[in-house]
Amino acid sequence: MSKSLDYENLNENVKECQYAVRGELYLRASELQKEGKKIIFTNVGNPHALGQKPLTFPRQVVALCQAPFLLDDPNVGLFFPADAIAKVKHYISLTSGGLGAYSDSRGLPGIRKEVAEFIERRDGYPSDPELIFLTGGASIGVMQILQSIIRGAHDGILVPVPQYPLYSATISLLGGSLVPYFLEETANWGLDIGNLRQSVAQARSQGITVRAMVIINPGNPTGQCLSEANLKEILNFCYQNNVVLLGDEVYQQNIYQDERPFISARKVLMDMGPPISKEVELVSFHTVSKGYWGECGQRGGYFEMTNISPRTVEEIYKISSIALSPNVPAQIFMGLMVNPPKPGDISYDQYNRESKGILESLRKRAHIMTDGFNSCRNVVCNFTEGAMYSFPQIRLPPKAIEAAKNAGKVPDVFYCLKLLEATGISTVPGSGFGQKEGVFHLRTTILPAEEDMPAIMDSFKKFNDEFMEQYEDYRGYSRM
Amino acid sequence: MSKSLDYENLNENVKECQYAVRGELYLRASELQKEGKKIIFTNVGNPHALGQKPLTFPRQVVALCQAPFLLDDPNVGLFFPADAIAKVKHYISLTSGGLGAYSDSRGLPGIRKEVAEFIERRDGYPSDPELIFLTGGASIGVMQILQSIIRGAHDGILVPVPQYPLYSATISLLGGSLVPYFLEETANWGLDIGNLRQSVAQARSQGITVRAMVIINPGNPTGQCLSEANLKEILNFCYQNNVVLLGDEVYQQNIYQDERPFISARKVLMDMGPPISKEVELVSFHTVSKGYWGECGQRGGYFEMTNISPRTVEEIYKISSIALSPNVPAQIFMGLMVNPPKPGDISYDQYNRESKGILESLRKRAHIMTDGFNSCRNVVCNFTEGAMYSFPQIRLPPKAIEAAKNAGKVPDVFYCLKLLEATGISTVPGSGFGQKEGVFHLRTTILPAEEDMPAIMDSFKKFNDEFMEQYEDYRGYSRM
Repeated sequence: MSKSLDYENLNENVKECQYAVRGELYLRASELQKEGKKIIFTNVGNPHALGQKPLTFPRQVVALCQAPFLLDDPNVGLFFPADAIAKVKHYISLTSGGLGAYSDSRGLPGIRKEVAEFIERRDGYPSDPELIFLTGGASIGVMQILQSIIRGAHDGILVPVPQYPLYSATISLLGGSLVPYFLEETANWGLDIGNLRQSVAQARSQGITVRAMVIINPGNPTGQCLSEANLKEILNFCYQNNVVLLGDEVYQQNIYQDERPFISARKVLMDMGPPISKEVELVSFHTVSKGYWGECGQRGGYFEMTNISPRTVEEIYKISSIALSPNVPAQIFMGLMVNPPKPGDISYDQYNRESKGILESLRKRAHIMTDGFNSCRNVVCNFTEGAMYSFPQIRLPPKAIEAAKNAGKVPDVFYCLKLLEATGISTVPGSGFGQKEGVFHLRTTILPAEEDMPAIMDSFKKFNDEFMEQYEDYRGYSRM
Repeated sequence: MSKSLDYENLNENVKECQYAVRGELYLRASELQKEGKKIIFTNVGNPHALGQKPLTFPRQVVALCQAPFLLDDPNVGLFFPADAIAKVKHYISLTSGGLGAYSDSRGLPGIRKEVAEFIERRDGYPSDPELIFLTGGASIGVMQILQSIIRGAHDGILVPVPQYPLYSATISLLGGSLVPYFLEETANWGLDIGNLRQSVAQARSQGITVRAMVIINPGNPTGQCLSEANLKEILNFCYQNNVVLLGDEVYQQNIYQDERPFISARKVLMDMGPPISKEVELVSFHTVSKGYWGECGQRGGYFEMTNISPRTVEEIYKISSIALSPNVPAQIFMGLMVNPPKPGDISYDQYNRESKGILESLRKRAHIMTDGFNSCRNVVCNFTEGAMYSFPQIRLPPKAIEAAKNAGKVPDVFYCLKLLEATGISTVPGSGFGQKEGVFHLRTTILPAEEDMPAIMDSFKKFNDEFMEQYEDYRGYSRM
């Protein structure tokens, strides 16, 4: 007799969900690493794992919050600047017993207030702390909101393709339907509203109620920043179709082209005025894991709800309560992120120098990487306007596709595995994010250290060009 | 037209789930606190919120892990003892880039190894780190495991009544069926196997497949420790009925009676030998939030899987990956908890003094509280053998029940609200945990500071005895 937790008895939704970022490629890379091979993990946006140093000021504050007994030490000023000490006292006063006490399930009220003030400064419209929930990373928030929405397979969620697989995995897990809309690679991954309408029409013809739409802005894995005009079209679309917009804006500080700034969905919504600004339901997500912070391991995030009914907000509060509270240290990181040192503060110069240094280097790396990919045989790549990924298209020769088939692999998985074995570069195949039929990509982060980047791109080019030569030659040969 | 996220369009499972620990009573208490009333929050086991000081050594280690740049400071030894510094270096070497880098989704391998060694020391049987997953608190782990098990309303989970509402809420949220088994209040909340079999038979007659059984040991809210004999009966039952056992053992360090020690389900399982020791599927949960640590706000926990098929372990790994990784600082707390300072270490004496002090005080408070409740009119209370709760039975007079009905309240909610308004003591009504029909309880933690405890119990007694007098007198009066 099969046992209760045997594979065949598991929840089918669990079995069906796929999460490529930590899928076959990652598992193989981990194995190779155990065997002693040097692996460059560019499968996940994890800056500190690739040598990015944490910003000093927030670490000073959170360190001292963890050890508040040091505040009584007369020498504390030797180690911690006065503005950090002041922040420590401030944040401890906002907790209900220091970092070891559960907070309210929505997060500490005082920090939610700081987030609201940040949003107001950013967008020029007031924000209500009661509609901001702190979470243990943005992913958890996305999962909670999708859980509230999805009732079954007839509920559809519009998701960009290519997409970050958090969305496809969570929708599978919750038993909903993913309704794909394709981003246009030839238009630098822009969103075409006609295409969106078509996706909705098709889903409806299959009996699916489209209830929500996800945008990832700046894009993951695609790196584009949505224009104001595009955001307006999207919000109009949501209004006309009674669809809640989920705005994944975790890369809002990762912007590498001055002519294409980040604009929040909420600002555009408010700019549009009534009735749209009062009607369209919007949930926006942010995190401490990205930007120049990169504090992934701390697991801090928030979501902000706009035009969501109070009764629904209460229900979301209730389900947030089941896991009691998001972790408190990361809440303080969030407070510090939205309320960093100001000009004139003791730590301002250092904070500013560090954060600018990281952003400028990321911008340079975005260029090195895009240029590197575009110098390779059969590889084309849009420039990374934002976020931390490069998503080159790999034009695989037919014989490579055939070889993949013979090896029992999806073609881009085949390519990425060969790349991994040859160079130690651990990427994610485009199929993990979705792509048009017969078109292949890979995703890599732009996070390896700037000084390592040229060697990595050389190593990639050497592998790629040899790979192409092998499979193109082979094709040539077989033609004879 | 109703909007996508309006209450009526939400996932029904979200609406149906209840979470009393942060329910009506908690919300009312929060309101009163805002209005300036002094509230004693005993609704949730949150020791630091009631003044318990964190243990110094782990906080020193995690603080310095957050600020590793201090390691280069020649004065670091002024603030941090050498053994803490050594631990910092050790734990940072286990991360993949410090506390700011995502770990593997199962947690850092080095810390999972330390957990396995702890389990081996505790139980006398080896434990495999590959079967231990670190989580952001035990609740998250419970939710992941239940998610893997529950396929729909025909899947039943045996849950003790009274129970900690994490279980009922999660089962609702996942659309499964809770199959209650009653603990025997008159047998100090012991578990009667006959009763368990009856529950299963009844569920089966309703077409429910019973797939898992939850035990909470030591009990929450009931405070009992399961005996070895009882655990053997339970494991035999699981074997005969092909049921996976979920062992919530988060209070394993909170033991207040020497004659009734904590014994892990895993140790008893291994002691029983084959075939049972090789067959019964067991998942055991632990946390840094309880014990003498009480580091609730850090959100750290783990689960260990025994006799679970490798393919299922892979599936659970996959769904853990969707939210990327548990928070890293709490993983280090877990490492420190399972591998604390040893005799001879510089910090051993302080660590030992602090942890013993907390446990001894909790033991005293368990006595003060039980005795206090038993001195009250119409209140009877079992002694708290373990965990951090007292769960007195409140024998409400018929007229109080009638008054509750007139106020539109469940009787124990009515009583607890009155208690809150009169005294500021914020408890959770027994109905939030489940209880036999017509029997009423409340749950309170034993966590208020020892020196405050006598005054709190006096205030409770005054309220209770007046309440009883009012409603008994009234009944007496109306009889005339």
